[in-house]
Amino acid sequence: MPQQIDFQTDPSRYRHWKIELDEDVANLVMDVDPAGGLFEGYELKLNSYDLGVDIELYDAVQRLRFEHPEVRAVVIKSGKENVFCAGANIRMLGKSTHGHKVNFCKFTNETRLSIEDATENSRQTYLCAVNGTAAGGGYELALATDYIMLVDDRRSTVSLPETPLLAVLPGTGGLTRVSDKRKVRRDLADFFCSVEEGIRGKKAVDWRLVDEVVPNSKWNEAVKTRAHEIASKSDRPKDAKGIKLTPLDRKIDGDSVSYPNVSIEVKREQGIAFVTVRAPKDLAPATLEAAHALGAAFWPLALARELDDAILHLRTNQSEVGILVFRTEGDAEGVLSHDAFLIAHQNDWLMREVRHYLKRVLKRVDVTAKSLFALVEPGTCFAGTLAELVLAADRSVMLIGSREGDNRPPAAIVLGEANFGFYPMGNGLTRMQTRFLGEPETVEKLKARIGEKIEGDASEALGLITFAYEDFDWDDELRVMFEERSSFSPDALTGMEANLRFAGPETMETKIFGRLTAWQNWIFQRPNAVGEKGSLSLYGSGVQPTFNKERV
Amino acid sequence: MPQQIDFQTDPSRYRHWKIELDEDVANLVMDVDPAGGLFEGYELKLNSYDLGVDIELYDAVQRLRFEHPEVRAVVIKSGKENVFCAGANIRMLGKSTHGHKVNFCKFTNETRLSIEDATENSRQTYLCAVNGTAAGGGYELALATDYIMLVDDRRSTVSLPETPLLAVLPGTGGLTRVSDKRKVRRDLADFFCSVEEGIRGKKAVDWRLVDEVVPNSKWNEAVKTRAHEIASKSDRPKDAKGIKLTPLDRKIDGDSVSYPNVSIEVKREQGIAFVTVRAPKDLAPATLEAAHALGAAFWPLALARELDDAILHLRTNQSEVGILVFRTEGDAEGVLSHDAFLIAHQNDWLMREVRHYLKRVLKRVDVTAKSLFALVEPGTCFAGTLAELVLAADRSVMLIGSREGDNRPPAAIVLGEANFGFYPMGNGLTRMQTRFLGEPETVEKLKARIGEKIEGDASEALGLITFAYEDFDWDDELRVMFEERSSFSPDALTGMEANLRFAGPETMETKIFGRLTAWQNWIFQRPNAVGEKGSLSLYGSGVQPTFNKERV
Repeated sequence: MPQQIDFQTDPSRYRHWKIELDEDVANLVMDVDPAGGLFEGYELKLNSYDLGVDIELYDAVQRLRFEHPEVRAVVIKSGKENVFCAGANIRMLGKSTHGHKVNFCKFTNETRLSIEDATENSRQTYLCAVNGTAAGGGYELALATDYIMLVDDRRSTVSLPETPLLAVLPGTGGLTRVSDKRKVRRDLADFFCSVEEGIRGKKAVDWRLVDEVVPNSKWNEAVKTRAHEIASKSDRPKDAKGIKLTPLDRKIDGDSVSYPNVSIEVKREQGIAFVTVRAPKDLAPATLEAAHALGAAFWPLALARELDDAILHLRTNQSEVGILVFRTEGDAEGVLSHDAFLIAHQNDWLMREVRHYLKRVLKRVDVTAKSLFALVEPGTCFAGTLAELVLAADRSVMLIGSREGDNRPPAAIVLGEANFGFYPMGNGLTRMQTRFLGEPETVEKLKARIGEKIEGDASEALGLITFAYEDFDWDDELRVMFEERSSFSPDALTGMEANLRFAGPETMETKIFGRLTAWQNWIFQRPNAVGEKGSLSLYGSGVQPTFNKERV
Repeated sequence: MPQQIDFQTDPSRYRHWKIELDEDVANLVMDVDPAGGLFEGYELKLNSYDLGVDIELYDAVQRLRFEHPEVRAVVIKSGKENVFCAGANIRMLGKSTHGHKVNFCKFTNETRLSIEDATENSRQTYLCAVNGTAAGGGYELALATDYIMLVDDRRSTVSLPETPLLAVLPGTGGLTRVSDKRKVRRDLADFFCSVEEGIRGKKAVDWRLVDEVVPNSKWNEAVKTRAHEIASKSDRPKDAKGIKLTPLDRKIDGDSVSYPNVSIEVKREQGIAFVTVRAPKDLAPATLEAAHALGAAFWPLALARELDDAILHLRTNQSEVGILVFRTEGDAEGVLSHDAFLIAHQNDWLMREVRHYLKRVLKRVDVTAKSLFALVEPGTCFAGTLAELVLAADRSVMLIGSREGDNRPPAAIVLGEANFGFYPMGNGLTRMQTRFLGEPETVEKLKARIGEKIEGDASEALGLITFAYEDFDWDDELRVMFEERSSFSPDALTGMEANLRFAGPETMETKIFGRLTAWQNWIFQRPNAVGEKGSLSLYGSGVQPTFNKERV
């Protein structure tokens, strides 16, 4: 496996995807280069994919939203004959570490959720034109779109053959989207997930697995017609100009990574990464036009992109870092002024994109399998959008007053309107609502204090932070907190955090990350899948797996 | 471990619990016999428990509901000095197979849910008097009650030390009940679950971990007062006479187990157990008094007890059985007449108990980690309550018409009112609603056909069953279905079924069996917990565990 996996790319570098524009419709064409695997030892045959293919897909989904306001519907289709997509590459999975499998599936899940987010919130509706067999992850990709068309050529099927073929689950959303999004009857779903060859034709429609089957002869026309029909219902502007997602200004120096607004410093021996987010130097632009002109340099967007990349890097390339410590620098005024700007212009298509991107990045933080701490000290600016990091943290600690010899004003948290509805979590509630599930009246109380500088003691009393410490206790308390956390089993912490972070309702999204992913990760540890005689290990070898038949 | 674990017991045989009656209050006193472990190699010190202790608790909870209508509140307390309960016995866990751990936790979860069910539906409200330290599973037991009192003696704490001490989760409901039942703020919960020594006194109240702390000097009186106060709010009858849960008439002959109304036949080489349920020979009693006089012989109650025992036996003692095949025998009329009786008298305390017991047994079927099939053939009586087995099955198949040479009438399903609200699943929906999540109108359509004999073709067309087969295909189709299922990885099937059976909303109950249990099972496979140098393996040895620090 490569030393470092980079999540940055752009269409000029794509090896696996093409974006074809057709007025208000974009075709997102999957045409995987078999030799383009992210690491050695497997060929990406039959449009099968690995993390590298998914990194390009994620990039494409992001660019379509920001660079193409005119695109109102996106058709995912295959560039190959007779096969839509064969799913995740099995040899790659067989050769991967447990950690890589889990991280790969998580990113794939997030990308598919970003497709659903584009459909729902950008009104850039995704369709899937299954022009050939869609198996496993291939059909799971189709399930992430809002309308699935299947060619009726007596050969093309949709299938989830993971259980019969590989002894694992359709674990990147497949089972959950079949049961909860498409609401396939449970016994039909059971049959469907047991039959390697899949389901085709009218039965696929009757069973709610696809929305429409179309004969080969009418296929291209039907897909085009359906896409333009769906596009016509969007509220995206007709004459707007997209903004360019320019390359990130990122510097890597050993374990340190820095961007203009975010920096990462890794303390390897402690297993800690300090993630510092900087407030903008200026207040928000005076006009919407000025914000558009800033494009990727508009602070909230730049922050979203940098933090997104930083989190993905830490997850994937720093697996021995168990703790992320969020800090901030700069003036709260700049953050709050940009928040106010986003809120004032929330009906503008670009501001809508920026807000939902920030929402997605914060959700990515929520499902990151590392302990999250926030440190609120003098000189920090946990205000509005940045205060979400305090609320996203497993624990946040705050200094009371100022530090000796430091004449900056005392640490304070400033809440903004953005903390009360702008960034829902995967469970559909705000971080504030989730936090105060047992005392919803506190949410109202805090809302009344929007804009106030809430210092240490008051933040603790209000429940905004976990603990406030005096200057003379601060260093010791932090040292003990970090040492203690580092001494615990990383697995137990991952499980504990995955349970405690998501109080309240479950949604399809949280079911995917909770129920489905947890079961899949269990199976990814079981000898029947990954042992010497397990299905994943023996796949393609011609040798049949041998199962321990005990039911657990 | 013993060859066979028996779930039947009665108070005369209890080694670990005492029931003390005090008018409308019962004290359920935990006083674990250290030498009374279910298998060799560990001592049940400090009121720690194993499956054997939990089997007695389950029995006590059941008996309090049926045998003691006069009991309106139940106080769980410890019979030992200074310790309430130290949780699941760690040496026992360390020595157990993965399968035993998982089954033990599942039964423990079900028993705790049965405590909540008694509180909610029997109005027999559980309180917990934590008169000493409640650690891990000890506090989890307290969390299953509706009111937790903690003695304020500067020593007694509640704690969930699993993560820091054992590298596992508080996985039998602990995390979920902390976040979703008691709605403890997530960062306080994070701290609480990281601190071995736990939380005591006023802070435990402030953090919502307990409801009340009471000084030692006022303890006994306060517990008594609170219990009688709570008891006074119950709607349970004052002068009713309980019925006796007499010993089950169970015959075990090799792999066959038979009861008057249920029998199990195991086909070991195929990994299948046929579970046959027999309809009552008679119609329901003429009067409520007659039903009470029948007591444990009243058919719906006898069925619930026998099926409950059968499922527990199959889970625990037949781990290589991967498939349960439900069949029925007898007349639909008898079943429907008993259903009608239960519905007509649903305000009677005993009929209410019977209904909720049937509901709990059906839920136990839902979370059983075996593939569930139902066979609807001539001579079967999948009617009303028994039709729930068709709806609970992963797949149900039905014979069209009659078999050659068999002159019984064609197979038919008969729906009853009981299928439309009497037996909600863990997700809060009926099996019918869950099944038709995508087409709720079908539920209404089926409701209009209550009482009709719905034969094979019609059942298939209505979606009541998965497939209907003609006589000449029947044997082959069944053979292929069983062979195929047996060839799959048992682990993948467990994961698949755990996802497909619970479409729709999640509740605290489904979160415990889905999210929390799945994460715990994953951790129960990880070297940091169960490897040679893992926490569970080394516990009590004086050697510190060595963790792989990679975060997954």
